[in-house]
Amino acid sequence: MGRALCTDFYELNMAASYLRRGMTAPATFSLFVRRLPPRRGFLVAAGIEDCVEWLEGFGFDEGDLGYLAGLGFEERDLEALAGLRFTGELWAIPEGRVVFAGEPLLELTAPLPEAQLAETFLLNQVTFQTALASKAARCRLAAGEAMELVEFGFRRTHGVDAAMAAARGAAIAGFAGTSNVEAARRFGLRASGTMAHSYVESFPSELDAFRAFASDLPERAIFLVDTYDTATGVRRAVRVIGELGLGRRAGIRIDSGDLVAVSREARALLDQAGLTEVRIFVSGGLDEGDLAALVTAGAPVDAAGVGTRLGVSADAPYLDSVYKLVAYDGRPVMKLSTGKETAPGAKQVFRRPGLDDCIGLRQEEVPPGAEALLSPVMTGGRRLAAPPTAAQAVRSARDRFVRDVAELPSAAGRLEDPEAPAPARSAALEDLTAEVRARHQQAGGD
Amino acid sequence: MGRALCTDFYELNMAASYLRRGMTAPATFSLFVRRLPPRRGFLVAAGIEDCVEWLEGFGFDEGDLGYLAGLGFEERDLEALAGLRFTGELWAIPEGRVVFAGEPLLELTAPLPEAQLAETFLLNQVTFQTALASKAARCRLAAGEAMELVEFGFRRTHGVDAAMAAARGAAIAGFAGTSNVEAARRFGLRASGTMAHSYVESFPSELDAFRAFASDLPERAIFLVDTYDTATGVRRAVRVIGELGLGRRAGIRIDSGDLVAVSREARALLDQAGLTEVRIFVSGGLDEGDLAALVTAGAPVDAAGVGTRLGVSADAPYLDSVYKLVAYDGRPVMKLSTGKETAPGAKQVFRRPGLDDCIGLRQEEVPPGAEALLSPVMTGGRRLAAPPTAAQAVRSARDRFVRDVAELPSAAGRLEDPEAPAPARSAALEDLTAEVRARHQQAGGD
Repeated sequence: MGRALCTDFYELNMAASYLRRGMTAPATFSLFVRRLPPRRGFLVAAGIEDCVEWLEGFGFDEGDLGYLAGLGFEERDLEALAGLRFTGELWAIPEGRVVFAGEPLLELTAPLPEAQLAETFLLNQVTFQTALASKAARCRLAAGEAMELVEFGFRRTHGVDAAMAAARGAAIAGFAGTSNVEAARRFGLRASGTMAHSYVESFPSELDAFRAFASDLPERAIFLVDTYDTATGVRRAVRVIGELGLGRRAGIRIDSGDLVAVSREARALLDQAGLTEVRIFVSGGLDEGDLAALVTAGAPVDAAGVGTRLGVSADAPYLDSVYKLVAYDGRPVMKLSTGKETAPGAKQVFRRPGLDDCIGLRQEEVPPGAEALLSPVMTGGRRLAAPPTAAQAVRSARDRFVRDVAELPSAAGRLEDPEAPAPARSAALEDLTAEVRARHQQAGGD
Repeated sequence: MGRALCTDFYELNMAASYLRRGMTAPATFSLFVRRLPPRRGFLVAAGIEDCVEWLEGFGFDEGDLGYLAGLGFEERDLEALAGLRFTGELWAIPEGRVVFAGEPLLELTAPLPEAQLAETFLLNQVTFQTALASKAARCRLAAGEAMELVEFGFRRTHGVDAAMAAARGAAIAGFAGTSNVEAARRFGLRASGTMAHSYVESFPSELDAFRAFASDLPERAIFLVDTYDTATGVRRAVRVIGELGLGRRAGIRIDSGDLVAVSREARALLDQAGLTEVRIFVSGGLDEGDLAALVTAGAPVDAAGVGTRLGVSADAPYLDSVYKLVAYDGRPVMKLSTGKETAPGAKQVFRRPGLDDCIGLRQEEVPPGAEALLSPVMTGGRRLAAPPTAAQAVRSARDRFVRDVAELPSAAGRLEDPEAPAPARSAALEDLTAEVRARHQQAGGD
């Protein structure tokens, strides 16, 4: 699969040059989001587990090296690349934590060529997985406590990887299940789903379809009632629920129309038939705004499937993430490009209650009453702790999310015009920044 | 990997029910985009090759079946699923063709359970790959003929699959290369890239960095000039180009600032030094609007890297794609849900010159002067022709794109407020739709 070739070409150029020159002193790169998208007041860290796994398996195989030879890399470059493994150290903010702009999600310290070659993959995974988990968190907040959410995005995510990450990110943010069977298996999630319109259409009549499904799969009898006429569909569902004695195991799903009005009408029909415990499930192009509107209107919706707009984080499909060199060979460095200045040195994020954060230097002492968000995950190229199972990793991340989100300032959590907290910077970080800026401006002007 | 579990749970429920009931008559599903996003006047078909490959390898292995047993599927269901392979027929519009709303990109005919189980994967691949290729096509049109484009999106695509599809889709739409090394290998593309800001920062000075890179990799000496001060960076590049006699092999890259102004300043500095053939490459958050602005301003830009906003199709990260049952057991069917009505029967798209399209029924004769866009790709579960190499598939798709886009009406191709042509419908399709609607409304009212 060419795992090490999952990189941008310039990383290889730089690595080759560094290796020829023996520039293998430790470099620290910091991965963070510069600015949040306009409609994000917070982010939910995700993607770190995949980074650790990739780093553990990093290396070039024969096929990779043969391809690079064809691109013009010299024998000495190929020999040097052949011997590369990841031997460095990784610090990270654990998945599921709520984070803000400027806070390093990862910091990697390794011989410069190794650290450089990891850039593309690490940025890719952390950026998109954090974007998806953050979108899911907004949906979860919007839906209120009573409504159950299920992730439905597989058909429109950007590929299979993305589908797995969407299901996983949604689970971290408190979704109750996913339609994605492989993701359910892989991450120990609840697989959820019943029937499609095509099922109903495959039978001579809607009533035949409902009877068939409910007798074959009585435990999953959520009747999709809007293939033809929704009210008629609900009445037929009522009839089949009665015929088969399904009672509270059953539900209905509405996938089109004005969901507030239609869910009310459906609830009334169900209640009139004494089916007060039959649940109403809605779906169909929903996002956090639609969920909030259902809650505000008091629509009798018990559960919702959230698909496409979650699965691609439609209003913010990417984050302004970067992977910046902050130290090389013991020397803190920074970038001065217009509008893209970065702060130097290995960092730490100190969090006080209420998600009151301060970005400082890693060597600073943790201030009283604060906790340090970044902790070491790998050293010498290996994990510090045995890897969690995939399911454990998701459960732990969800627990962290639940704890953090409970402390989220309401202005950061609101859907419209959220105000993202701006982490403070420690005096030590400010001092170092001024010092390195002065030194660079001197070097830049030689 | 559980390839057959890369599906939504409801597909399995429906398949199990169909299998128990012997509902294995042929079903035809049509995959199309209902409406184009507001800023799209056309789409570029992509993702079909991955669908064919998936269908060829479709099947449940022991691990898959064991997992399904745990979800409550009965022994008879598992036995039936264990025997499933894809045995059907696939028609498709070839990759690279320009397509419009309502036109089936794929039509699959197979025993109902097989056809149902393919829904999620086929929708996923065609939707996102078509979205990415269509975004790339807009960039290619905006950049004009003189500017070369390179795909730079890997670090922000939604995973590795998506990165490969972004590079591939961009190549189909006429990009000259990609930064993604694995994609370059896989699809026979040009790998492109030079140095990052971190390279410059790893040396005591910018001048040292430029000298090092150019002496190590003289064939890739594109100097990134904006780490500190851009004009100073250009002057240093000029100095190193002269010192090492790089001449026309060299170039500079500008990744920040006002690209129109900075590229002009850089061009003037290069020209003053007699380096009129040294190329200027720009990058940094560009999309088709930025490319068009560079062209309009007459900025002296020879090549551009287009990354994130292409790689996630930022302004339209998904398409309103559907996979609809249009025939079952020889009987045309349709869905009547409010606002989601679909046309019945297996279809064909007849194209006259100027991309003047008419959607008709598959069995209709091709009208004089028209061509039929869908052609058979698989029958009996196998490809009709030997698979192309990955590189051939991209080249053929690019040739198709070049031919089609030359005929694209200008209103469909413009960047702002494009007008997407609305394909006509044949009389035979209109008649069948009326007939099936009447029959369904009768069935719906039983």
